[in-house]
Amino acid sequence: MRRVQIAVIGYNKDRCTDAARKAAYEAGAEIARAGAVLVCGGLGGVMEEACRGAKDNDGLTIGIIPQDDPSHANRHCDVVISTGIGYARDFIVAGSADGLIAIGGGVGTLTELSVAYMMKKPMVAIKGTGGTADHYGGVYLDERKRAKIIAVKDAKTAVKTIFKELG
Amino acid sequence: MRRVQIAVIGYNKDRCTDAARKAAYEAGAEIARAGAVLVCGGLGGVMEEACRGAKDNDGLTIGIIPQDDPSHANRHCDVVISTGIGYARDFIVAGSADGLIAIGGGVGTLTELSVAYMMKKPMVAIKGTGGTADHYGGVYLDERKRAKIIAVKDAKTAVKTIFKELG
Amino acid sequence: MRRVQIAVIGYNKDRCTDAARKAAYEAGAEIARAGAVLVCGGLGGVMEEACRGAKDNDGLTIGIIPQDDPSHANRHCDVVISTGIGYARDFIVAGSADGLIAIGGGVGTLTELSVAYMMKKPMVAIKGTGGTADHYGGVYLDERKRAKIIAVKDAKTAVKTIFKELG
Amino acid sequence: MRRVQIAVIGYNKDRCTDAARKAAYEAGAEIARAGAVLVCGGLGGVMEEACRGAKDNDGLTIGIIPQDDPSHANRHCDVVISTGIGYARDFIVAGSADGLIAIGGGVGTLTELSVAYMMKKPMVAIKGTGGTADHYGGVYLDERKRAKIIAVKDAKTAVKTIFKELG
Repeated sequence: MRRVQIAVIGYNKDRCTDAARKAAYEAGAEIARAGAVLVCGGLGGVMEEACRGAKDNDGLTIGIIPQDDPSHANRHCDVVISTGIGYARDFIVAGSADGLIAIGGGVGTLTELSVAYMMKKPMVAIKGTGGTADHYGGVYLDERKRAKIIAVKDAKTAVKTIFKELG
Repeated sequence: MRRVQIAVIGYNKDRCTDAARKAAYEAGAEIARAGAVLVCGGLGGVMEEACRGAKDNDGLTIGIIPQDDPSHANRHCDVVISTGIGYARDFIVAGSADGLIAIGGGVGTLTELSVAYMMKKPMVAIKGTGGTADHYGGVYLDERKRAKIIAVKDAKTAVKTIFKELG
Repeated sequence: MRRVQIAVIGYNKDRCTDAARKAAYEAGAEIARAGAVLVCGGLGGVMEEACRGAKDNDGLTIGIIPQDDPSHANRHCDVVISTGIGYARDFIVAGSADGLIAIGGGVGTLTELSVAYMMKKPMVAIKGTGGTADHYGGVYLDERKRAKIIAVKDAKTAVKTIFKELG
Repeated sequence: MRRVQIAVIGYNKDRCTDAARKAAYEAGAEIARAGAVLVCGGLGGVMEEACRGAKDNDGLTIGIIPQDDPSHANRHCDVVISTGIGYARDFIVAGSADGLIAIGGGVGTLTELSVAYMMKKPMVAIKGTGGTADHYGGVYLDERKRAKIIAVKDAKTAVKTIFKELG
């Protein structure tokens, strides 16, 4: 039986805030505790902290990176998918998630949410983490209102909400 | 000397409005008159009308489609790029444009704008065409404010603005 | 410390022979016993048998599928990467492997070997499994002779050879 | 009415021979004279010479490049598709061709032929140009024998053969 796969998306290393880092670590930890698999973009910032949180709780971590060389992945990825397709890998991160958690983030995070929205996947955004999570939390990305980006207060609620949405 | 390549993005066939259709035809026509190449997603709705407008003005039209079979393209595409990579082709539409014009549109249009924003490309949105163009016209897609989606009043101004931004 | 990732590639469900099925099961089992992660295309035939062999030996199995819906993966995949990019996913299977084992197979297997060859990855082909493995085992794919597809007699030697090549 | 799109594939700049360069120029010229569109990988060597031959004969040239920046394309490309997906763009070159002409080439050329073979597209290889064209001309790439890579003596015959195969 395949386990649920949850993506954590958000700030990369350059612009990550302390609040986002902390929330990402907690999100990774909660995903692991819930018995789900962590999927992410495999690089720094939110991605790295989520992986670290998952590994500290015996989780399984998958990094789907833009490069074709696994050495670019953060060292907390158990498995590295070296796509070699650049930032088009954002499509694959979103496509490989049963649900997504946004923490801070810029336009790359918005791209991933857009793809997930098109596929009607459960999406949550942790409030107070800045950037895309704060700006797009609670909204629909287009007028069809296929799936709302649910604003949640913390990592624990984030994971619980995704499981609830998955039914 | 390579000519400027301008993408027209927006509603697909299912949800296209008359206002968007008309603006798309005009955008295609203006692109052709300006001596630029029209790049688009190659399917129906805004994409098809833009191609028709360009062809009626002796333009060159390129359709970059999700499928691996060119028969899915609208019949006004001179050249069909059959990517076979599904909606990840949105990355290539944005990547192959020197500037983009949004006309109506849903979340796919937002995805294309997100990718273009990341690459700091000139983007305009024609007001009054609905959807993504109206909702995101005049805004920045993230807090870095790399490139504004400039709201413009019509197709003629759209093309003129892109040329001005390209310098 | 990331574990070694080994891809098993070859016949899909339609054309898989008993010899290939048996070798694939053994390859999956040997990969698991060696403590490596099994990467594959996630569908039927050789891919499914390799996953089954790995799971029977407490291995970890990753299926990188062409579709954007994980239900297409065989049920022995622990993690499914739903690429949505069609058969361009062959690039990602090869790119995500530290070494590859070919078992039977048709032109898709050749595509994966070509990509791995370009990246100079260790490749082995199990003799007597038919198709691409038998036809291209022992050869170089182009005149640069970057990496030989080493013909081996069985799954055990296949895994051992890849580890030896990785140094 | 969309025109026929023919891909010319083969040696890149590093390893291109004079024979391959000459055949590529002629292939581009013949494609243009036949009223078809030239599709290629957009970089140097065979790709550049084919574009030059086509432009000298008023043809239309499309370069589908690995990078996301069009400045990497050779200067004889009328239109540049900046994929940003690295060498996975080989899939799109093959997918966007109604037929393919191989001239010399290494493993990248073999990858493109493999993809075209899977899609049962007409393929020809010009004899005496070295590399992949000489090695795989006249063969089937797997045991299903879906489509033969037809060995031809020159560029003129190459284009004529593709049109004949397309019926």
